[in-house]
Amino acid sequence: MIVEVIAVGTELLLGQIVNSNGAHLGGRLAEMGLDAHYQVVVGDNLDRMVSSLRTAAARADAVVVSGGLGPTQDDITREAISAATGRKLLFNEEHAAELRAFWKGLGREFPESNLCQAEYPEGAEQLANPRGTAPGLFLEHDGALIFALPGVPAELYQMFDEHVAPRLRRRSGAGGVLVSRVLRIWGHGESAVASCLDDLYHASANPSMAFLASEGEVKVRLSAKAASARAARVLIDPVEQEVRRRFGASVFAADDQTLEQILLDELRARRWTIGTAESLTSGMAAARLSLLPGSSDVFRGSAVTYAADLKQSLLGVPPEVIDDHGVVSIETARAMADGAARVLGVDVAVAMTGAAGPAALEHPPGSVAVAVRTPDRTRGRFLRMPGDRERVRAFTTASALHLTRLGVIGEWWAE
Amino acid sequence: MIVEVIAVGTELLLGQIVNSNGAHLGGRLAEMGLDAHYQVVVGDNLDRMVSSLRTAAARADAVVVSGGLGPTQDDITREAISAATGRKLLFNEEHAAELRAFWKGLGREFPESNLCQAEYPEGAEQLANPRGTAPGLFLEHDGALIFALPGVPAELYQMFDEHVAPRLRRRSGAGGVLVSRVLRIWGHGESAVASCLDDLYHASANPSMAFLASEGEVKVRLSAKAASARAARVLIDPVEQEVRRRFGASVFAADDQTLEQILLDELRARRWTIGTAESLTSGMAAARLSLLPGSSDVFRGSAVTYAADLKQSLLGVPPEVIDDHGVVSIETARAMADGAARVLGVDVAVAMTGAAGPAALEHPPGSVAVAVRTPDRTRGRFLRMPGDRERVRAFTTASALHLTRLGVIGEWWAE
Repeated sequence: MIVEVIAVGTELLLGQIVNSNGAHLGGRLAEMGLDAHYQVVVGDNLDRMVSSLRTAAARADAVVVSGGLGPTQDDITREAISAATGRKLLFNEEHAAELRAFWKGLGREFPESNLCQAEYPEGAEQLANPRGTAPGLFLEHDGALIFALPGVPAELYQMFDEHVAPRLRRRSGAGGVLVSRVLRIWGHGESAVASCLDDLYHASANPSMAFLASEGEVKVRLSAKAASARAARVLIDPVEQEVRRRFGASVFAADDQTLEQILLDELRARRWTIGTAESLTSGMAAARLSLLPGSSDVFRGSAVTYAADLKQSLLGVPPEVIDDHGVVSIETARAMADGAARVLGVDVAVAMTGAAGPAALEHPPGSVAVAVRTPDRTRGRFLRMPGDRERVRAFTTASALHLTRLGVIGEWWAE
Repeated sequence: MIVEVIAVGTELLLGQIVNSNGAHLGGRLAEMGLDAHYQVVVGDNLDRMVSSLRTAAARADAVVVSGGLGPTQDDITREAISAATGRKLLFNEEHAAELRAFWKGLGREFPESNLCQAEYPEGAEQLANPRGTAPGLFLEHDGALIFALPGVPAELYQMFDEHVAPRLRRRSGAGGVLVSRVLRIWGHGESAVASCLDDLYHASANPSMAFLASEGEVKVRLSAKAASARAARVLIDPVEQEVRRRFGASVFAADDQTLEQILLDELRARRWTIGTAESLTSGMAAARLSLLPGSSDVFRGSAVTYAADLKQSLLGVPPEVIDDHGVVSIETARAMADGAARVLGVDVAVAMTGAAGPAALEHPPGSVAVAVRTPDRTRGRFLRMPGDRERVRAFTTASALHLTRLGVIGEWWAE
């Protein structure tokens, strides 16, 4: 099944924002085993949007449009779809009432111009948007599925998963189903994973195997076609088990499981609480540990000691540890983790200190010390991260959470 | 003059990398006053590249292809251009000799497969690449200019400026540039901004006006076409001033300035340091305050007191404040901000406490108290955020930083 993504917005053509929605949708479609031949960016222009929609609907089985569903004059995706498909724009009174109620709930006056968000091309289904006021659209026209989603990333991501993915999955498995299993691996590069699985890659056509590298992890996607989901899983299972056997604890999650979720579950199972002591990441690990609802039974808090003297005053790191080993050292990270366990009253603490860049800090940018403390030991690790400041901070956060998971499940590394 | 950008690479379609080359080229073309109607991403597939090239050459005056000029099997931009234009691929012996010499200089054996980089479609000019081994291509076919540049950003950027921009400028008749100014507004919804500026929107064709809502702020983009950048700015200035007059301190930044940058600059100008006390946002404000290089002269750290008892033990919030007013209250937020100023040794502190959801916490999800402390006062504000947990946390973080900016510049709100 071929899916084409159209990103709408003059600001994309002008380079004022990067088309990260296109990358996100491309990645999700690839994970689902669907094909993408083209992606198109088009400005807020009716004729050109209509032309892009018609071309895409003719050469692909499904089209996903992002953007142009807002309430202002330049949001014209609704009109473009109705023009491209020759359908009238209808008005959903019920949704209009919901819009009015939403604004009333905020205690603000309803801008009548927003009523355009209640419009939809005849025969289209409005897709609920739990994060915003612009509903999405779904219709089928001349054998092509057409979806329109808001361009706001958080809304787009959730609505793709909730509305688009299930419909594409259902449709692409017509006369059978396509079932995918994604194994998420940390600690090995893409080419290392690919070469370790080379024999399986060539031996197995169903399930097929694909590799996706993203932000420090490698995803191995196994996709099987079969008459039923159950039969597809029977095909996937032995290959999955072999991949898991080869990579052991490096396989940290499957499918949509997140690292946060896995880690919190492991902590919860042991009735352990967790906190962080952060320097270069400045609260990023804490933010991830509290991402999920209900994390408060496990996650307690964090000391962000960005200024060097706070490591002493807030976490009680002995001055001689810093004097002898430096701020960016396994020893300081360990003292930070021990201090955090005491100050925050937690069973497990993870500490990060390092040089995010672009300036050096005792070591070249990208040099990072992480320490993990559990009730039975504290162990550190020195890492070198590639990339710029933003990448170093994100990779450090992810690495710290991965190392914490390994410590919690007892898969300790040699220091 | 209309220019279309085609980015080549299956990794772009799969979402493994974001199409930042497209954004860069779009921005450069806009600065030059050239029009862009479409951007296309196509995979490493000969037929589809040929089809994209033909479509682009037919509907645009110039086509800029990025990527696919490397030495491996999947680099097929040279073949695609020769197929799309019906020209033979010729071989440049001179460039081949340069390639051999380059590898010899590195002391490595020359991979014969790299000889494909000396190929070029008949009649095409090879464009020198000062940063790499893949030359670019330029040819004119059926009235359209076709350029091909390597996908490596540093090579692409330089070669665009050196080879493509001058040729486009010459051909487009030099005259005219497009200049944009983006004003970033906080505290008003997209439709409120649009309706407040409705008269300007309709009255002004040059500069044109567009609205873009993103993550709690609204961007107003003014774009003017004129003979020179200076003349364009003369057109933009009065409209910009009128927008600023109507929205006052709510216009917090222009163009690429970020809230973090603005806030840090305001603090730096006053020689004030800052820290945060966070509960529901759990370090997200701290992470944003340390996003930029060099933030360490202003930002010192944060106390993330996710567990209620840490608000007392770490920040010294008096138990009776929480007993009398609740955890989610202006009073508790103010005590957290005052405590953070003391514990972190900072001049300015911002505190956030609230119910991120989905569970209620004294108040419905989305209820948040923020307090800002500066050397001369501490003031709180109670907010209700729409949306789910992730959105509430992100909006709370942004709102807290915006309120901090207002407090720092002395634009206090009534509590």
